[in-house]
Amino acid sequence: MRVCLTVAYDGTRYHGWQVQPNGITIESVLNQALSDLLGEKITVIGASRTDAGVHSLGNVAVFDTNARMPAEKMSYALNQRLPDDVVVQESKEVAPDFHPRRCESRKAYEYRILNRKFPDPTRRRDTYFYHYDLDVANMNRAAQHLLGEHDFKSFCSIHTSAETTVRTIYLLDVRKECDMILIRVEGSGFLYQMVRIIAGTLLLVGSGRLKPDEVRAILEKRDRSAAGPTAPAHALTMLGISFAG
Amino acid sequence: MRVCLTVAYDGTRYHGWQVQPNGITIESVLNQALSDLLGEKITVIGASRTDAGVHSLGNVAVFDTNARMPAEKMSYALNQRLPDDVVVQESKEVAPDFHPRRCESRKAYEYRILNRKFPDPTRRRDTYFYHYDLDVANMNRAAQHLLGEHDFKSFCSIHTSAETTVRTIYLLDVRKECDMILIRVEGSGFLYQMVRIIAGTLLLVGSGRLKPDEVRAILEKRDRSAAGPTAPAHALTMLGISFAG
Repeated sequence: MRVCLTVAYDGTRYHGWQVQPNGITIESVLNQALSDLLGEKITVIGASRTDAGVHSLGNVAVFDTNARMPAEKMSYALNQRLPDDVVVQESKEVAPDFHPRRCESRKAYEYRILNRKFPDPTRRRDTYFYHYDLDVANMNRAAQHLLGEHDFKSFCSIHTSAETTVRTIYLLDVRKECDMILIRVEGSGFLYQMVRIIAGTLLLVGSGRLKPDEVRAILEKRDRSAAGPTAPAHALTMLGISFAG
Repeated sequence: MRVCLTVAYDGTRYHGWQVQPNGITIESVLNQALSDLLGEKITVIGASRTDAGVHSLGNVAVFDTNARMPAEKMSYALNQRLPDDVVVQESKEVAPDFHPRRCESRKAYEYRILNRKFPDPTRRRDTYFYHYDLDVANMNRAAQHLLGEHDFKSFCSIHTSAETTVRTIYLLDVRKECDMILIRVEGSGFLYQMVRIIAGTLLLVGSGRLKPDEVRAILEKRDRSAAGPTAPAHALTMLGISFAG
């Protein structure tokens, strides 16, 4: 059967999702725990290959197994074997042809900026501390240019292997809650470092170094060097994925 | 001059506030950084001697110095020398007789319970994971019995050295925000482990093992063994202190 896992993790200690020759990854600890639990070699397929340091409340991974353990019980058994910074939130059987990267889906991310005079040490692992004033209204104006289907080549690392850089953003919203500025983005899928480059560009807008409407020109240039810097990974959390159908 | 610091910290790595023979404490890293910065031996006096693992957004400490550095500049200079889990939020000169434990003050704490099916690894350092249902309305009913001036001997560790166990609670409120249950308490001062014992007792009420009105009898017994267990330290954050006058 094919089993689908919803996985939450604190990415601080990890070299990202995808198996790496050096350093532990979320995928590698899942493969290890599943192989130990089920007594066969398991290799998961992840929906989002998050970068080193990025967190998730609900990434999705599937794997095939011959085990007779009910899929719904696997979450409990796996959490006994996983480190405390990786927690399976749900396990369930899915159709044998369900593939988390090939199915149509909507992914949600949140980038958190702590905008205050001094850092908050209790939030240092999942927020980016930025002490200059940010204009949230202008950040939202800039965000409007990125909504919809576009070629996001300007907002993609040059180290991408994607066949096409066209993606659709359904929602891009910037809001302030006390001293936290939250950038929420939902889309059909995201290019390598795309959310962090959007965050870095919106930070330039918020601090007044870029006008909101300049973001349209950046998009049209289809050139990574036109956009802002890649904002730090540790402030990014993948919130979850919903699949069509 | 006497200088007052507002200090935020992630207590995870620390053996509490107060200097200990074994293990680092918030007080010891502050004393070290201040002594290095000012070139004289500095010993701070803290307002709240928080337990090992407890966090703070705004504990208060004072010290005396002959240094000529303006007090307001010290926060920046100190943060350069402090580890990234201790951050001074403000430094200012105060009256030479200001003593943070002898002045009348109001202290605020928050105890965070994550009430959901599986743990959230990104919140494991500052929340207590509890997966059974909790009745927040009953927790609030129980809380009402603790409001006002009482002898809190039942809610104090037997290892206290306090002369009196009478304290005043101004506010004790339990609220639910999504999957988080937040216990907020404000008072004139708190006995050793008092907030954690209140949290542990309200957890018994929330889970139905204690009726809300039984909390009054527990209070009247003046016996630590009558109250609930001491809830884990890592889920407690000291929010701040305001001083009268």
